[in-house]
Amino acid sequence: MPLLTEDAKGVYVIAVTPFSDTGEVDWASVDRMVDFYEEKGATGLTILGQLGEAPKLTAEESREIARRVISRAKIPVVVGVTAPGLAPMRELADSVMEIGAAGVMVAPPWTLKTDDQIYAYFASVGDVLGKTPWVLQDYPLTTNVTIAPKVIDRIVRDIPTCVMLKHEDWPGLSKITTLRASSDKGETRRISILCGNGGLFLPEEMGRGADGAMTGFCFPEMMVGVVENYAKGNPDRAHDIFDAYLPLARYEQQQGIGLACRKYVLAKRGVISSATLRIPAPALSKLDIADVERLLARQEKRLKEIAA
Amino acid sequence: MPLLTEDAKGVYVIAVTPFSDTGEVDWASVDRMVDFYEEKGATGLTILGQLGEAPKLTAEESREIARRVISRAKIPVVVGVTAPGLAPMRELADSVMEIGAAGVMVAPPWTLKTDDQIYAYFASVGDVLGKTPWVLQDYPLTTNVTIAPKVIDRIVRDIPTCVMLKHEDWPGLSKITTLRASSDKGETRRISILCGNGGLFLPEEMGRGADGAMTGFCFPEMMVGVVENYAKGNPDRAHDIFDAYLPLARYEQQQGIGLACRKYVLAKRGVISSATLRIPAPALSKLDIADVERLLARQEKRLKEIAA
Amino acid sequence: MPLLTEDAKGVYVIAVTPFSDTGEVDWASVDRMVDFYEEKGATGLTILGQLGEAPKLTAEESREIARRVISRAKIPVVVGVTAPGLAPMRELADSVMEIGAAGVMVAPPWTLKTDDQIYAYFASVGDVLGKTPWVLQDYPLTTNVTIAPKVIDRIVRDIPTCVMLKHEDWPGLSKITTLRASSDKGETRRISILCGNGGLFLPEEMGRGADGAMTGFCFPEMMVGVVENYAKGNPDRAHDIFDAYLPLARYEQQQGIGLACRKYVLAKRGVISSATLRIPAPALSKLDIADVERLLARQEKRLKEIAA
Amino acid sequence: MPLLTEDAKGVYVIAVTPFSDTGEVDWASVDRMVDFYEEKGATGLTILGQLGEAPKLTAEESREIARRVISRAKIPVVVGVTAPGLAPMRELADSVMEIGAAGVMVAPPWTLKTDDQIYAYFASVGDVLGKTPWVLQDYPLTTNVTIAPKVIDRIVRDIPTCVMLKHEDWPGLSKITTLRASSDKGETRRISILCGNGGLFLPEEMGRGADGAMTGFCFPEMMVGVVENYAKGNPDRAHDIFDAYLPLARYEQQQGIGLACRKYVLAKRGVISSATLRIPAPALSKLDIADVERLLARQEKRLKEIAA
Repeated sequence: MPLLTEDAKGVYVIAVTPFSDTGEVDWASVDRMVDFYEEKGATGLTILGQLGEAPKLTAEESREIARRVISRAKIPVVVGVTAPGLAPMRELADSVMEIGAAGVMVAPPWTLKTDDQIYAYFASVGDVLGKTPWVLQDYPLTTNVTIAPKVIDRIVRDIPTCVMLKHEDWPGLSKITTLRASSDKGETRRISILCGNGGLFLPEEMGRGADGAMTGFCFPEMMVGVVENYAKGNPDRAHDIFDAYLPLARYEQQQGIGLACRKYVLAKRGVISSATLRIPAPALSKLDIADVERLLARQEKRLKEIAA
Repeated sequence: MPLLTEDAKGVYVIAVTPFSDTGEVDWASVDRMVDFYEEKGATGLTILGQLGEAPKLTAEESREIARRVISRAKIPVVVGVTAPGLAPMRELADSVMEIGAAGVMVAPPWTLKTDDQIYAYFASVGDVLGKTPWVLQDYPLTTNVTIAPKVIDRIVRDIPTCVMLKHEDWPGLSKITTLRASSDKGETRRISILCGNGGLFLPEEMGRGADGAMTGFCFPEMMVGVVENYAKGNPDRAHDIFDAYLPLARYEQQQGIGLACRKYVLAKRGVISSATLRIPAPALSKLDIADVERLLARQEKRLKEIAA
Repeated sequence: MPLLTEDAKGVYVIAVTPFSDTGEVDWASVDRMVDFYEEKGATGLTILGQLGEAPKLTAEESREIARRVISRAKIPVVVGVTAPGLAPMRELADSVMEIGAAGVMVAPPWTLKTDDQIYAYFASVGDVLGKTPWVLQDYPLTTNVTIAPKVIDRIVRDIPTCVMLKHEDWPGLSKITTLRASSDKGETRRISILCGNGGLFLPEEMGRGADGAMTGFCFPEMMVGVVENYAKGNPDRAHDIFDAYLPLARYEQQQGIGLACRKYVLAKRGVISSATLRIPAPALSKLDIADVERLLARQEKRLKEIAA
Repeated sequence: MPLLTEDAKGVYVIAVTPFSDTGEVDWASVDRMVDFYEEKGATGLTILGQLGEAPKLTAEESREIARRVISRAKIPVVVGVTAPGLAPMRELADSVMEIGAAGVMVAPPWTLKTDDQIYAYFASVGDVLGKTPWVLQDYPLTTNVTIAPKVIDRIVRDIPTCVMLKHEDWPGLSKITTLRASSDKGETRRISILCGNGGLFLPEEMGRGADGAMTGFCFPEMMVGVVENYAKGNPDRAHDIFDAYLPLARYEQQQGIGLACRKYVLAKRGVISSATLRIPAPALSKLDIADVERLLARQEKRLKEIAA
């Protein structure tokens, strides 16, 4: 499978990990999910991230899921390899690259503070990963680490295997602007910037020079629609699509309960057989489900209106 | 002026502090702003909070602004009195209550950790504030303090002057449900719950039993429309209004840049004379302004559609 | 090997992981280190903790080190199994218990906030670990999680496999007093409390009812001397010994550089062949080494004085 | 009174704020305390810091205490002016400089993250303070802000009114070495570095080029003895003195309970009339007092031995 490069574009969907009602990995749903994401226009998949419930998997399960997804998918697969130490990170990265992953993704440990500490950490990551291309995940809300644009520039300049930024700083629009200015002036390489944060700022992020999305909202149609229409020079159409999905996307972006909501919708759409999360995990209450159902009904109505 | 009670309902707008282009307090704009919020249907005002740039004001300016707003307003005024210590908090609280404030608002210091530490802090707050009614501000994203529902229940049970929760935990829908269950079962007083977080979850929060909003989105029409329609039993109309404003509300909810955006729109609407923030403060870039203008144009169009 | 129980007493030394100059695990030094700790009076060993550089080891290395230490040691061995998720924690715990570990040790993830969140996490830990006895590591300075005494009581009451507290809150003397009062009144089981924090408060901790130490200061003689003399009713002798070692213990307690200092001294004492840490790791500067050498010389002189 | 400069040396004692048993400011004790610190060899005083219980004072009390101490003292007085915003900081700074303070001290707000954010904050501080010389307080353990040496260098280079670093990073020996290397090479001004952290690393800090201490240990004799002997080229005598006081200094360095311990000893020494802290504050238990008394007795004995 081709390796991830700075030219990556489009929508890399953050995949869930489907479980049966009793918490076993549900392999049939894994296959169905891969097919679903491809049918909806995903250009890549990202697995074993936080929202793939990676920390709840045994090492063996992680490897098996990676193997299954990679062998099924016709599109590139990025694998989350964030780990408490560099040695286990390398172990997992090497094993998934061997079976055909396109690249890996790394978030910083919560203890990093100064610019130099952050840079040094990712320099070490680059060292231990060897030739494997990797994605820098910049998500201060959950990592506790704020990475200044100049630190990202320095990493990009010094470490050629860093080919993509998963951008989910908040607010982050000026960050994209600053990073693109650096590469436009030739001060750094231009790497791929795919945006997370549940897609909540996707149209504006595309307007600042992002290359697409890397997030897991339960309607990948939204991300695909926004990215494609921006690429085609139709920002208004992109916003129309975005606005129709925004109420649900906002609801799904709640920390904790959001993943339960995502799985609920994916199950309802027939993609996965069960909405089950492995424990420990919050469950949707009846009131939560009523909220989601209302949002789904309103969304469907609005989508029809804007299709007309 | 009547004191704040557990029965408070509706929309308490978080007021900005208007400055001239050179950073002086702009008294004419203060008056105009008070009138504007009242005309748009606000049932109360909250001043000298974080988004009122309170930390950038001298003690004298703070007192003068409180005096001006309270004497102008026909609706109750809540004053933020969060301070590094209890003695200065009491000083400010006493001085604003004397000139007619309806109550005060307190956020916890970032160093609190355990349930008992949080409870003990607010117990001390209740002690030093005497008979002054106060609002507990629960905003973990900026305070670093997560307050469990049972801790809020305990505070409410023990401290009769705590009459309102400014709810902005995220996610927080189940928190409202839990708190309302406690008072429904008679285990605690039922206090007022007004919701912040830029209004981003307002319809769902109303559905869980909130009494209204306390937030500063630049179109108070949104909060008023959602709250009134929920109160009248028209949730769908509430959602229609909410959805029309959501793209801009989401944009304004960005940390840091959000307040600049809010002042930009209020200035454009003629409420305040200048969008200036006191330093240190981020400024809107041309790209930010273009984003806001696009969102305003789309919002206007959508409002017309749903008005039809 | 017998399992860890609430009756554990004495000194469980936090073992380093010896590496060769080139960063390979140095098996001969592993053996020598086990013998050394036993000769100096350790009643137990704790391996694969943060200061055993566990995150820098591959899964295979971790298992091999556990196997080597357990098969060599005549005293009980506790193994650190803190992991980002419950599934990998169980995997490691099961594998080391199978080869004869006495129990395992678990620290909380940095994201826990409220009392109930902390309790729920350790309840899950108890569930997945089955019958394996475990140590609760309470070290707020590095975990970011502050655990109130009542939360520890609740865990101890509900989860019978929690048999020991590795106490390193700071300040923590009143915490020990509170916990012992609970068990003295029969409100909870009395579990073993062994103290960390580099031993910096060991005499006072013994005075409050601790059962010993679990820490890695490079002179286990200090911990053994303090604990034994307190047990024998000679607190003054305990303090004499403690005071003689305190200047170095304080120096070794520096975050980051402390472990390098510990390995330097253990190498100098002939216990391990090389003072090497695996990267990323800080190295001692010439000035650091001069500091340590001065402290060693003064300590030796003082020990002679108090021996006389 | 002369202004604080880069040449400041010796021991600036962090003064407590004496209260009566009922919590009123005890003016007679304020005077006696000033005299005491001068008699024991202090070369300066620092008031209204965290350990002076500044946040518990009203604005009026703060000004009165500053006035009283400054008018009584024959040595320079530095005043803590850390505040939630720049406007109140300037107000307090201007008012104390007017009545004769030598300079002011500023700690960063807990929300700062990146190098540039930290630099920008202190650049703003320099702006609003005008010509007032100020001390940068670098105490990550309580401020939550880690400041890299290069950021301090940049502040020193750009802001001439920053004349002193209150160094209490931990570990921080290599930080002093790095900062001194910068000024030795002529890359920055050489500013005064006085060390905090309860004096726990004072001899080693002097060895790295610190100019003295700024901390509040209840026996200023220790800091004076260590600093003077290092200055005279007697490091071994400095260590003898340090080691004699270290067991108590370590005990007093506990967060929270430490200040109660300090006031207990100062009251016992007859410096202040009451050991009372303003609420909210932890109180010493009988067991804590027994610990302190034991440490005092042992310290007295040891001081006699080394005097002989």
